[in-house]
Amino acid sequence: MTAPLHEERRGTNGARLPDTQQGMRRRNLSRVMHTVAAHGPLSRAAVASHIGLTRAAVSTLVDELIRTGLLDELGPERPSRVGRPGSALAVSGRGPVGIGAEVGVDHLAVCAVDLRGEVRARTVRQVGNRHRAPEPVLEELSAMMERLCAEVRQAGLSPAGLAVAVPGLVTRDSRTVVRAPNLGWRDIDLAPLLPSDLPLTVDNEANFGALAELWLGADTPEDFLHVSAEIGIGAALVVDGRLLRGAHGFAGELGHVPVRPEGPACPCGGRGCLEQYAGEEAVLRAAGLEPGEDRVGLLADRAAAQDAEVRHALHGAGTALGIALTGAVNLLDPRAVVLGGALSRLAPWLLPSLERELTGRTAGRACRVTVSEIGPDGPLLGAAHSVMRAVLDDPVAVAGGG
Amino acid sequence: MTAPLHEERRGTNGARLPDTQQGMRRRNLSRVMHTVAAHGPLSRAAVASHIGLTRAAVSTLVDELIRTGLLDELGPERPSRVGRPGSALAVSGRGPVGIGAEVGVDHLAVCAVDLRGEVRARTVRQVGNRHRAPEPVLEELSAMMERLCAEVRQAGLSPAGLAVAVPGLVTRDSRTVVRAPNLGWRDIDLAPLLPSDLPLTVDNEANFGALAELWLGADTPEDFLHVSAEIGIGAALVVDGRLLRGAHGFAGELGHVPVRPEGPACPCGGRGCLEQYAGEEAVLRAAGLEPGEDRVGLLADRAAAQDAEVRHALHGAGTALGIALTGAVNLLDPRAVVLGGALSRLAPWLLPSLERELTGRTAGRACRVTVSEIGPDGPLLGAAHSVMRAVLDDPVAVAGGG
Repeated sequence: MTAPLHEERRGTNGARLPDTQQGMRRRNLSRVMHTVAAHGPLSRAAVASHIGLTRAAVSTLVDELIRTGLLDELGPERPSRVGRPGSALAVSGRGPVGIGAEVGVDHLAVCAVDLRGEVRARTVRQVGNRHRAPEPVLEELSAMMERLCAEVRQAGLSPAGLAVAVPGLVTRDSRTVVRAPNLGWRDIDLAPLLPSDLPLTVDNEANFGALAELWLGADTPEDFLHVSAEIGIGAALVVDGRLLRGAHGFAGELGHVPVRPEGPACPCGGRGCLEQYAGEEAVLRAAGLEPGEDRVGLLADRAAAQDAEVRHALHGAGTALGIALTGAVNLLDPRAVVLGGALSRLAPWLLPSLERELTGRTAGRACRVTVSEIGPDGPLLGAAHSVMRAVLDDPVAVAGGG
Repeated sequence: MTAPLHEERRGTNGARLPDTQQGMRRRNLSRVMHTVAAHGPLSRAAVASHIGLTRAAVSTLVDELIRTGLLDELGPERPSRVGRPGSALAVSGRGPVGIGAEVGVDHLAVCAVDLRGEVRARTVRQVGNRHRAPEPVLEELSAMMERLCAEVRQAGLSPAGLAVAVPGLVTRDSRTVVRAPNLGWRDIDLAPLLPSDLPLTVDNEANFGALAELWLGADTPEDFLHVSAEIGIGAALVVDGRLLRGAHGFAGELGHVPVRPEGPACPCGGRGCLEQYAGEEAVLRAAGLEPGEDRVGLLADRAAAQDAEVRHALHGAGTALGIALTGAVNLLDPRAVVLGGALSRLAPWLLPSLERELTGRTAGRACRVTVSEIGPDGPLLGAAHSVMRAVLDDPVAVAGGG
């Protein structure tokens, strides 16, 4: 065996691009923004000590970020907790905002989040999108978005990008919805249907929900599996603080992990998939309920009211979730499993059987199960925040400089 | 919801360390080494165009690498395929070598690989290590290693590091074997038991096998799941060209993914785990055979000789592998599944049922199944090559410069 150590392998994150002075400056601008966003208000000296550069180098970077409106100098008159009132820096609450949008099976939503993480505007509309054609859905969403953008512009803010969460598989180029079974969409390129000057990113709602958990959760680790549900069951894997997307962008299909290989046929072509036991329709059927408007609310209300059939159905769903998660924990070794989205509302009745299966089958594994505090808002917030994270990651691109 | 965009998240890869001139120089030295290793012999001008730096900048870097013995100047008299005989550069075949070692259940092995990827020395010894205490095993391995190191030093080479492959779970600090059930080892820190001046890395054999596949395979994609077996079944996930290790270093435990949740009890505490259907012992039992010396060879010979019981047992193992891999493909979306290690020898009889399950259950997924050409040599070669990759990744550290 004498194969040479050939082929320099590269990830898709571009980490191996040549190191130039300009690239170094861009990365250091990003470090300043991240540091002030995470720990500000901070003096220039404190920023310098945080990121390990000289005070002079940091001052040059800070001046540029103030000029482009991404950092604010709080001014000498303002009292500051950190005791450096003369020079405290903070991320701007006036500059760019990220526009997040969500296409749900039962609703549409848009919001704007600023660099400080504050929601500056938000609109939610209950609307049945199940098997509705993409054109009218996206026309309605565009109109909501335009009104929201006009509103934030009037407040002196400037939309920096648009991120849309959808309940389906999205290609890795973040534009095309390959398959959204509960909407009935297949191979829909969203860009032409969302006319806007803003840079557009489309992603699976489970991915944006996981990012919201990572960025906004109180105690979220850097390695976790986020499980969510609207009608289908989705999951997203965060590894070392980054989403694992898969070769085609389709990672996280927990709903089609086989739970009982000879179980009921699934529309995916498999048998005994998790969705056949823990998907919304399966649970409603097991509970003897008809699918209505607020299905998760109905299940939660009935379970809270001690409805034995509903509790039994949720117990079964929790068991199936525990079996599928056993496989996931063995494969991925996450630090935690986080139940998000609609599942967070049903957690009290899912968790006992889920944890019994998972703990019993993965003895010696240290993987805790937690319930998201963000819940159903995750995908929308994750989308909007992702636009702001992109500004922190490369402030130059957004400021139009170079 | 007004949570701030707080907390700069960091991966464990240190990508967010401050960008300094010195860091930039180190990364560019690495780029030169990787480029010459992948595409050499190359002139300085060709290297410059490959990595996007000026010829003058590259010359300075190249001179340093020649001085430290990592690059060779082939000289004007030497004819070269690429037509630049006056200045062709190649990675040195005289400098550092990586020492790889493997603790197998049935063997011990050591080898030395140079920067060009050539195996310069190799020793394999058949020895039954099952339930043998770590001290005598590692004493024997150390002696083999010392003889090998003496041999390569006599040839003018210098061992740059030692990487050891073990059939068990290893902590993320790459020193401690947490659990190697087939050796009977628990919580063994290998460093004190392998006295050597060389930097030591310990990892799971499946991880090193996957890296060998990534680096040496003819057509290996950057996103794949590598499945291997000695007695247990292990897997390793490569994502964007890097190993996914998991929060504790335990990712890839495909052998304990539930295949039939009410199936036979497994020593792991679970039920119906893949190893209960496709592990070596389960297959031997299903085939009515006694565990002997060369178990995989026995199965392959009998299957090739049309033994119906053995073929039936391997068919069942393939089915179980297909079910477990369906879950893995849904969760991870790899571009390929590669059967490596001992499984590569049994592939002809595993593949038909494996592929029928996997393809039937994952319609619309594009995930091919391939068989490793490296086979059982993977972990040993992956270990040795990993030491050489570390030299390419940071030539300064190895040359002792800074």
